[in-house]
This record gives sequence, C-alpha cells and structure tokens, in this order.
Amino acid sequence: MPAIDLNSDLGEGWAGVAVADDDAMLQLVTSANLACGGHAGDADARRNAVRAAVDAGVVIGAHPSYVDREGFGRRAMDVPGPVLERQIREQLEALLDTCDGVPGAAVRYLKPHGALYSRILADADQADAVARVAAAHELPVLALAGVPGSAIQRACDRRFVDIIGEAFADRAYASDGTLIARGVPGAVLDDADAVRARAVRLATEHLIDTFDGGTLHLDAQSLCVHGDTRGAVALAQGVRAGLDDAGVDVRPFLSPS
Amino acid sequence: MPAIDLNSDLGEGWAGVAVADDDAMLQLVTSANLACGGHAGDADARRNAVRAAVDAGVVIGAHPSYVDREGFGRRAMDVPGPVLERQIREQLEALLDTCDGVPGAAVRYLKPHGALYSRILADADQADAVARVAAAHELPVLALAGVPGSAIQRACDRRFVDIIGEAFADRAYASDGTLIARGVPGAVLDDADAVRARAVRLATEHLIDTFDGGTLHLDAQSLCVHGDTRGAVALAQGVRAGLDDAGVDVRPFLSPS
Amino acid sequence: MPAIDLNSDLGEGWAGVAVADDDAMLQLVTSANLACGGHAGDADARRNAVRAAVDAGVVIGAHPSYVDREGFGRRAMDVPGPVLERQIREQLEALLDTCDGVPGAAVRYLKPHGALYSRILADADQADAVARVAAAHELPVLALAGVPGSAIQRACDRRFVDIIGEAFADRAYASDGTLIARGVPGAVLDDADAVRARAVRLATEHLIDTFDGGTLHLDAQSLCVHGDTRGAVALAQGVRAGLDDAGVDVRPFLSPS
Amino acid sequence: MPAIDLNSDLGEGWAGVAVADDDAMLQLVTSANLACGGHAGDADARRNAVRAAVDAGVVIGAHPSYVDREGFGRRAMDVPGPVLERQIREQLEALLDTCDGVPGAAVRYLKPHGALYSRILADADQADAVARVAAAHELPVLALAGVPGSAIQRACDRRFVDIIGEAFADRAYASDGTLIARGVPGAVLDDADAVRARAVRLATEHLIDTFDGGTLHLDAQSLCVHGDTRGAVALAQGVRAGLDDAGVDVRPFLSPS
Repeated sequence: MPAIDLNSDLGEGWAGVAVADDDAMLQLVTSANLACGGHAGDADARRNAVRAAVDAGVVIGAHPSYVDREGFGRRAMDVPGPVLERQIREQLEALLDTCDGVPGAAVRYLKPHGALYSRILADADQADAVARVAAAHELPVLALAGVPGSAIQRACDRRFVDIIGEAFADRAYASDGTLIARGVPGAVLDDADAVRARAVRLATEHLIDTFDGGTLHLDAQSLCVHGDTRGAVALAQGVRAGLDDAGVDVRPFLSPS
Repeated sequence: MPAIDLNSDLGEGWAGVAVADDDAMLQLVTSANLACGGHAGDADARRNAVRAAVDAGVVIGAHPSYVDREGFGRRAMDVPGPVLERQIREQLEALLDTCDGVPGAAVRYLKPHGALYSRILADADQADAVARVAAAHELPVLALAGVPGSAIQRACDRRFVDIIGEAFADRAYASDGTLIARGVPGAVLDDADAVRARAVRLATEHLIDTFDGGTLHLDAQSLCVHGDTRGAVALAQGVRAGLDDAGVDVRPFLSPS
Repeated sequence: MPAIDLNSDLGEGWAGVAVADDDAMLQLVTSANLACGGHAGDADARRNAVRAAVDAGVVIGAHPSYVDREGFGRRAMDVPGPVLERQIREQLEALLDTCDGVPGAAVRYLKPHGALYSRILADADQADAVARVAAAHELPVLALAGVPGSAIQRACDRRFVDIIGEAFADRAYASDGTLIARGVPGAVLDDADAVRARAVRLATEHLIDTFDGGTLHLDAQSLCVHGDTRGAVALAQGVRAGLDDAGVDVRPFLSPS
Repeated sequence: MPAIDLNSDLGEGWAGVAVADDDAMLQLVTSANLACGGHAGDADARRNAVRAAVDAGVVIGAHPSYVDREGFGRRAMDVPGPVLERQIREQLEALLDTCDGVPGAAVRYLKPHGALYSRILADADQADAVARVAAAHELPVLALAGVPGSAIQRACDRRFVDIIGEAFADRAYASDGTLIARGVPGAVLDDADAVRARAVRLATEHLIDTFDGGTLHLDAQSLCVHGDTRGAVALAQGVRAGLDDAGVDVRPFLSPS
C-alpha cells in the first residue's frame, strides 16, 4: 500500500492576523511546518499553532527563514554562513521554547522556508549552515526531492543529517527535478483536477510530468500543500481526497513525539 | 428603496503574500479601503488592488494606520498629533501616487485603520491629525456611526470635513453605540444567519440589537465586511445576498471618480 | 563612602549597524541593559554585546520592550497583559540563550525599555506582566526610583520581586518624582557641567533639583547614562569623572554572575 | 586648484533614534545622501535632515535601497527589475514630497544604498531599474568610480543618465577598482593618518594604493565619509582638514537647487 506525508506551512499569522487557514489545513495534513518569527509568526501565533497541531495529532516541524519579515522570506539573500546559522538556531529555539509549554508538543524536523529553501540547493555555505543546526539538534531536514547532488544533500550527508524528500503537486518541474520559477507562466498549477491527479501519480507511481513534456521519477516522502488562499485550501482538499480515494496511506514520515 | 454601501479592507498583502481574498471581496463590495503601507501592503499590492478595484467598478478609499507593520496597526499607540499627521499624509500620498499610474483610479475617502479607528473616537489630538489630512485633500472620513459626540466627529465638524457613518453587522454593540472589545466573548459574531439578519435590519430599519439586550438606532451609510478568512468571505457573501434579497440597493456612497 | 551603579542601554545595533557607542560606554558603566530584539538588536549584536560586557566586567541585564522595532519601543501601546508577558519572556529567553554560549555571562536583572518603562508606573496590568516574568526567573527589576506607589512597585511587592531604584541625571524631574516628558523644552539637559553636578549630588546627598524649582529626595541605586550620540558619550564621561572625583564608589548593584 | 565633493549618508534615524551624528557631518560634507525609508529613516527624520541640509548649504541626494529595514539594506537580494524600479521610485518620491515642504530644498542626485550599490556594478537587470528611475527624474547617479564597464555605467549610458564617480578613502581597493569586501581583514581602514593621506592623494593626484601593493588611477568627483560612530566622525574630520590643508577646493559636484 503506497503511503505519503502531507505537509503545509502554518503559524504564519502575527498580531492576530491570519495568513493561511490553519484550522482547515490541520484537518488535511499530517505534518505542519511552523513559522518561527523569521519570515512571519509571533509568540501567540506559534503557541496557537502548536496547540492546534497537537490537538489534531499533526507532527510539528520548524520552518526557519532568512530574517526577512519585510519580504516574507521570499527574497534570496547573501548572508554569511555563521550569521545564517545563528539566525536559524535562534528561530528553532523560539519554537522549542513554545513546545516546552505545551504538553505533547515536540519539534521533529526542520524545513527551510521560501528563498532559503531554494538557495540551499546550490549554495554550499548556506546549506551547511542549515545542516549544522539540524545536526546539533538531531533533526532531519525536509528538502526538495529528486535533486541528489544538491548542496543541502551533500551538507546533510557530511554531517549525518537525514534528508526527507519533498514534492509539489501544484508546481511545474524542470527535467532536472528543480521547480520552474514562480514568475514563469504555467509554473504554478491551479487546475484542481490536474493537481489531484499529479499528487496521486506521485504517491502511487513516483512519477510526475515535467514542464517540457517529459516524465520524471521522484521518490518523495512528503507532499507540500498550501493554505494561504481559498483556492489553495480547495486544491489541498482535492489532493487529500484524491489520495484517500486512491488508497494511499496519508501518514507522517515521523511520529509526533 | 433602502440603500447602503458595503466596504472592505483590501490590498493588505505584501511581498506577494495575500492576507485577504481580495478577488472574492471585490465581487461583493462597493467601496475598498486600500492599505497604504502603514500596517500592511507594499507598492505592488497597492498597484494590483487599485487595478482590480477599477476593473470591478469599486470606489477606492485610503486606509492609513499607525505606522506599525509589526502589529498590523491593531495596537493603540501614543503618537503626537503632528507626527501622526505626517504619517497619515505620507500613506495617503503613496496611494495617490499609485492611482496616478492607473487610468480611472482616484482616492475618494479616508478610513483610519484598526486601533487608530477606535482611538479617534475619544482622542482629540489624534482625531484632529486625521481631520487635518482629510481637510487638506478634501476627502470625507469613514468613521463609526452612532457616536455623535466623538472626537473625530468634532474634529471633522470644525474643519468642514464630511463624516460617513459606518456600521458592523458582525460585531456586538454596547448601548452607547461603541463596539464591544474583541477580547470579550461574544464580541465577534460568526453565525452567518444572525449576521445576515443584522445587516438587513440595519439597512432597512436602521436598528441593531445591543450586547445588553436592547436595540440601538443607527444611521449608517456603509457596512463593513471582512475577507481575511474563508469564514469571513462566506459571512460577507451572506450579507450581500441578504441585502440583495431584501431589495436593498447596494451602492457606493460616492462615485468612483 | 557613597556608592552608585552606572547603567546604559547597549546591544541596540542590528544588521551590523551601531546605534550607540557600546565600546566607549562599557569603559564607563558597571551595568549594561542589553537589547533583546523587541525594539532593537539581533543575534549577532547580542552576542557581541554579551562578550564585550563580560570582557569589561560589566553586569548584564535584559532590556525587553514592546515588540516594536518600527518605533524603537518608544511608543506606549495597549497590549493585553498575557500577550505582553509572553513577549517579554521570549525576549529574556533570547538573551539567556546568548549568555549560555558565552563563558562567564549571566542575566542578572531586568529593565523594561522605553515606553514600557514609563507605562508600568501607572498601568497595573502591564506592570504585573513584567513582574510575572521577573518572578519566574528570580530577577530584580530596574525601575524609576522615587515613585513608591507605582504600579510596578506594587506588582513587584506582591510577587516578592526586588526593585532597584534608578535615576537620570540628564532628565528634568517633576516634584512627584516622575520625569518631565521629552517633548517639553528643558526636559532633557545637555549642559555637561550641570548633568555632572546633578549626578554627584544624587550619589552623595540623594537630592535632585526639580523642574519647578524645588528639591527632591531620591534614593537611587543606579544612574542611567546614554551613549547614542557623541554628545551623550561626552556627558556620560563627565558623569563618571565627576563621581570618581567626588569619591563615589561606582560599582554594580549586583555581582556579574 | 584640485577640487572634490565630500558626501555622507544621513537621515538614517527613525522613531527619534539617531544612527549617525548628522549635525557633526553636515559641518564637513558638501553633499548629503538622505535615507528614504527603504533601509532606514522615517517622515520625521527625513524632514529634519532636509531642513538641516538646507540650513548648512549642503546638496541633497536620494539614498534609496532594497526595501530591507530589517537588514539596513546591507544584504544583497534577488528582486526582479520591475519590482525594484517601483521600490526605488517610491522612495525617491517620499523624499521629493519632503523637499516640497521645505523652502530651498531639492533632490539633485540619486545614490543607491548598501548592497544595492554593490550589486548594480554587475547585475544588469537591477542596474537598469536604477537607471530607469534616474532617467525619469533627470537625476545623475552617484556610483563607484573606476569601474568603467560596470552594469550601472552601461545602463546609465544607454539611458543618457550622468554618472558621478565616487571613491572611499577608508576602504581597501582591489586592483580592478572594486572594493575589498568588508569581511576581509584590512578591508576597512581606521588609521586616521592613513585615511587622510589617501583622501588627499586621491583629490590631488587621482591615485590610490591597492590592497595588493599596487597603485590605481581613480577619477572620483566625490569622496564618501561616514558618521555612524565616534571614530568615523573623527576620521571624516581628519579627511576634511587634510583636504583643506592641501588646498583642495571641497565643493559639491552640483549646486543645491
């Protein structure tokens, strides 16, 4: 029986403002990447998200970012490795502190956010900063599947950090396994049927169609879904329903604690 | 035939991140309060929101705030009047600049955001700062209806600035016409039927039930609806449908340009 | 032999930008209030400030603030007590984490920053939030001396938290012991000789002249000096030299660890 | 008689917090690069800086930046050209608005700040965004002298925008005319005599020693000095005194209005 994890970025609100529909998403996913204040989130949002995740039985991961609330962590930045390492560690520790106060809560993995997530595929210095923090806390790193020689893969291998491969059913793929940049027309899919079909094929056959008409073999242990617009939630609901209907076991890649 | 305007806070995204579902809301409302960078929004979000509002035939208002992106403008602040005046003027000018670049776009009114909106009911110094900017640009101010002796009412009267009265169908009212604070249980209504019924009664009978069981007479020219969660959009859709079904003419209080 | 502590706000730089001249100030003071990210400071600034303070033998205190980098923590804010408590605790924990990594470093007291420092003289809810954090970490609170019935005094008394009284030689005092607001002409003294004389008189006679021509008795254990402009550093140097010349023992109110 | 302009970054304070010692620097320089809110500064700081510059007879330039207050504009960022263009234009317009309210004030040139200043030497897309704004407002661009084939030089040439060459007496130069990165030991000179001598030689002989022991010919019309620490102000005073003593005519490259 095929199995896959569903993850989503949550806890990104701040000052009482919601960015994504966390409640809706926690009914769908099995892992939650919680914002740690670098790109979004504050102490209250973090606490609420941790509690809601524990209540929903969803596994908690840290979602650190470039320190860039102004740009929501979506802008690639030149930051020296040692500075980046301290920033990521500090964000992780903020989430660990929050989890300390909630019975049953634990941080189980680390998924870099936004531009940092993409940058560490190629930037060895920044990738190693991520791997150093993950190694110190003995956490696996959730990173783009299907890019075996990536800088983050090499950094994690060197430091004995596990990598969990992640895929995106709603993003177009280049034939080398990287994502087509958001700015390119067609890079983000919004056809619910197409996204659902891609998700099911990924989970059951480990295959995904590429932007140039080919097919890519992808071994992903987790599938990312978004909840930041009504359309995104509907898409995620379609993905979940499709996986359930296809008999895929939607389950976390790790236990919650 | 009874008539009322529907307004909503839009353009609050930044760095490509959406806070509210602007597209859904522009199908429902007749006036759009556009974020000016004080609490949210950036140049791109502003330009997109102005274009979408013009396309939808929705009237544009400026939605200036305390300069507090960290708190989304929701924290009341002690800011001296002259400083506040410059901050509001600067935000308004940012929106005016954006409108300059979009054919058919014009700023037609000014609605203070969040904590500033509440504060100017009682704070004469800050209320006058708002009124000075409105007077200089000859714009009416959208403010809470039913508080006739408020500081903002007096400041606007003194400076010959028009006040447009606004009501909230999804907020509990005290018997003096002020809103019950968000923290109080029951202060925010989420029962779609109740909110819809309150909106229709407000538009047709100018009456609203108060928190303490009484009834308040409210002459509001505009009704505020929110779009920052899926539940909020559904609520707003119910309000619009209710008004349409009740034969209320949902129309802006001013022409778009 | 009279004795007094000299304290200053340090570690307020961020992104490599210096706000105050920390190196110059660490030669003068015996206690350093270190920014914790609420109004200024980042992980690097904090680490550098902690190291420099340890090297200089200066006692370290936490300097938490309203979460308001946009306003440098200088704007009074309406924040509910439980939210404020979490924000202060989180800032304190960030500094504790930094101190963990520096041999010989320890956080020994807590001094609220800016508008929060003033607000807790009268706001019982916010004062108690400060006192709760101080009590949980068994730290004394550095607060304005000479306001015996203040809200922060009462909150600390209730929770068995020690209060250390602080005075300002360069600020004008009202006859009730509160500071004249910055906006008032004459509220901030910049005459080096006058400031020096006031500091010496405070340390040796426990007296300070008031704004209205009277004299106030003030038992302060610590004197605050600033380092954010060249003039401020010169003023602080004058204060230190004056105290030394007058035979005052300039020493911390607590040991560094 | 040799002549050169002295420029400095001013107006970088916000919320009443000073970063540099603007008053001291305005006695020394002939051109002031005023922060426009992108990396620092707010409406009040801008107004005060414009007034002080006009009073001192110092020429005003706009100092736009990546929108990155969190990083003080010191982090290189991947931002698409059209987005960057709008951000720079918006910052310039904020300063133009401020100048509108101060008699005798005018924006006379544009100097990109921090990481953007360096990035546009090589990044054609971002360089052209800067040049487009400069062309639309008919302003010259102040950029690093001695890099003739730089991206910003080419973009400005294409759009008929004047380039003013700038040099740094306190920074180490590579033999290709670029600056040695700040992280490299020796990249920033703090020996006042050495910096003074380099400034005088630059202004009188158009020569500067390079990091690798060679000598570089540099035709700079302006020399940048800093005011963000006491040491920096002293360095700048030394440079000014050195130029005056050597008979160099320290004067702006343009008239103030």
